[in-house]
Amino acid sequence: MTLTQQLGLKAKQAEKSLAVADTQKKNEALGLMAENLLKDREKILAANAVDMALAEKNGLRKIMLDRLLLTKERIEGMAKGIEDIIALPDPVGNIISKIQRPNGMTVEKITVPLGVIAVIYEARPNVTSDAAALCLKSGNAVILKGGKEAVNSSSAITDSLRQALKEAGLDENCILLVTDASRESAAELMKMNEFVDVLIPRGGPGLIKACVENSSVPVIETGTGNCHIYVDKDADLEKAVKIVFNAKTSRPSVCNAAESLVIHRDIIKEALPLIKAELDKKNVELRGDEIARGVCGDIKKASEEDWGTEYLDYIMSVKCVSSLEEAVEHISKYSTGHSECIVTENEASAREFLKRIDSAAVYHNVSTHFTDGGEFGFGAEIGISTQKLHARGPLGLPQLTSFKYVIKGNGQIR
Amino acid sequence: MTLTQQLGLKAKQAEKSLAVADTQKKNEALGLMAENLLKDREKILAANAVDMALAEKNGLRKIMLDRLLLTKERIEGMAKGIEDIIALPDPVGNIISKIQRPNGMTVEKITVPLGVIAVIYEARPNVTSDAAALCLKSGNAVILKGGKEAVNSSSAITDSLRQALKEAGLDENCILLVTDASRESAAELMKMNEFVDVLIPRGGPGLIKACVENSSVPVIETGTGNCHIYVDKDADLEKAVKIVFNAKTSRPSVCNAAESLVIHRDIIKEALPLIKAELDKKNVELRGDEIARGVCGDIKKASEEDWGTEYLDYIMSVKCVSSLEEAVEHISKYSTGHSECIVTENEASAREFLKRIDSAAVYHNVSTHFTDGGEFGFGAEIGISTQKLHARGPLGLPQLTSFKYVIKGNGQIR
Repeated sequence: MTLTQQLGLKAKQAEKSLAVADTQKKNEALGLMAENLLKDREKILAANAVDMALAEKNGLRKIMLDRLLLTKERIEGMAKGIEDIIALPDPVGNIISKIQRPNGMTVEKITVPLGVIAVIYEARPNVTSDAAALCLKSGNAVILKGGKEAVNSSSAITDSLRQALKEAGLDENCILLVTDASRESAAELMKMNEFVDVLIPRGGPGLIKACVENSSVPVIETGTGNCHIYVDKDADLEKAVKIVFNAKTSRPSVCNAAESLVIHRDIIKEALPLIKAELDKKNVELRGDEIARGVCGDIKKASEEDWGTEYLDYIMSVKCVSSLEEAVEHISKYSTGHSECIVTENEASAREFLKRIDSAAVYHNVSTHFTDGGEFGFGAEIGISTQKLHARGPLGLPQLTSFKYVIKGNGQIR
Repeated sequence: MTLTQQLGLKAKQAEKSLAVADTQKKNEALGLMAENLLKDREKILAANAVDMALAEKNGLRKIMLDRLLLTKERIEGMAKGIEDIIALPDPVGNIISKIQRPNGMTVEKITVPLGVIAVIYEARPNVTSDAAALCLKSGNAVILKGGKEAVNSSSAITDSLRQALKEAGLDENCILLVTDASRESAAELMKMNEFVDVLIPRGGPGLIKACVENSSVPVIETGTGNCHIYVDKDADLEKAVKIVFNAKTSRPSVCNAAESLVIHRDIIKEALPLIKAELDKKNVELRGDEIARGVCGDIKKASEEDWGTEYLDYIMSVKCVSSLEEAVEHISKYSTGHSECIVTENEASAREFLKRIDSAAVYHNVSTHFTDGGEFGFGAEIGISTQKLHARGPLGLPQLTSFKYVIKGNGQIR
């Protein structure tokens, strides 16, 4: 058995005790996890300094360095994140439905943990504690594999969290970290159906694609968002300007940021200059089709590739369409199924758009930037699912559970 | 593009119209589908006669020949099955939840079809119409690939159903059949993520395993059931005998049939002879461990392989355990996660068993033979899921849907 498989076996054994742990016990462990992170702050910061020094030496990009960096405040934020999860309702052991059949037997549908969840993510140490806490509260053992640049930070954090589990009287193997930075260990995780119930990749399109194509373990795809905003001919231009600006520039690096502007031909001459003037304030680069470029001279030419690109940057594509029908077709072709918005005052057009666009979140006159567990009122989330099976949209605690049927009777046969 | 990929493209285009079809339109199509099957009965029987002749010539096993055979009555049964689906509630367009956020926007969670479902199954022509009708009612286009021995029957049935769609004004490509009998077309289906949203294999463990290991399309595993009945030391022996006999012999070829009997050591001397005497009436072959064989002399010796085998036949393994703990461990090791039962009058033991056994259906004093959509009151089903992601247990209409979030506002930004 390889090292990664040994982790799988340990996790599978550990989840059995966690699956039957009560809410109080799990919350007690979460409380100790938050405390321990604060207590071990200096150790964690020291480990992070090692990661940062190496990353700087290796010339990691500035945006990646910022994600990798831990500070006193960020560790406090991680602890606060765990405390917030204590306050959320326990998603396990809830009776979804209960019926009595004519023969007298009862059939109850009860929520249960998924079992063992593997999370593969990038070099963001905070994900280590977020994912561990969400999995623990939902009764799942977790195998974490973070980006190799953060391996010292993640190890220090995991040590601290595992110590808390031990103190709470839970199996410390409910939280495990793959410290082997190789791609082989990721490939192994993808094939460990015996030990892993679901694999959640959090990261760029390359990671997601690799998991979908190579994993025999069921995958929940997360996070790629080529989000569109369609400004209809009946749009209120003030709302359009405000929504496009917010969805594009509020936080361009996140998956719910808008990447593509689709505008109706009847309104483009009026709307595009207004929207562009606002986006210019943040130096957003526009890449448009011929009509858009005819309206505003200094728009770059969009290539076919642009329509399908999630920029995660101050760049936006602009497509002109002649009808709602054409907008729906364009969006359906290039969307990743994350979040799309129609800006219109025409209720019939809005209804048509909301019905026909097949994305996790469809918006009418609201910024796509709201696709987020917290903003939807669900509490913390482990990612945004862009697939249709099992869970769609924000993956909060309820989405980390399955259910079973419990049938009780007194000798019924069929 | 290969022929199978062309089917995928057609299905993806067809599902768009079906996804927005209303209940009345879908029920009208289902009504015509049932009518057409009856109208085309002679054509379908003739096609089936061709399949039967070839299968007999090729020496297909008797049990397979029986599954392949269509009769006037069986076609009437298929039509009746479709009519039953008309009566079931439409699983699409239902509002699961609706909240208003402090900023005034509303977040609705609404059920939507999965999209395109591919079903790979064996040479059972009736599955062709069952699966097509369930997918249509749930707004999904379906790509069917049945066993090659039934290709003429399935083609005739599909022609009849597609004609009904046309008459109802729906895209006939909502129901498609892969007539290419090669394994390559199955392999292609498994990789068509662009066109297929979920793959449901219905068949033996070999087929399921091939799909899980090779499919990049999300799979819902169905149907392998190595189901256990645990007769506890506090069992009512009358119930035990009745339940084991029913679960083993009522219909041994189905997945909810019991395959393994686990008995507590304290009761085995009394219980096993009684159970065996009943099973002897149907000539059930028992394969036991040393203790079981010590109790009843004419029990064959079980090998390690027996514990993990789904016999689907008049054979049952017998394992003696010293505690509930040991029973749970044995079952957890060899179960396929389908259905398991405890027979006991001790409520505490029952609670422990129901909590700790992680199968789709866990029973207390009820035969495992009840794991079935109809018996649970859900109506028709497309199979029994043994995985935890998305759907577990009977796969009825609600399990063939996903959901999306619809957010409405008046210019909210974040």
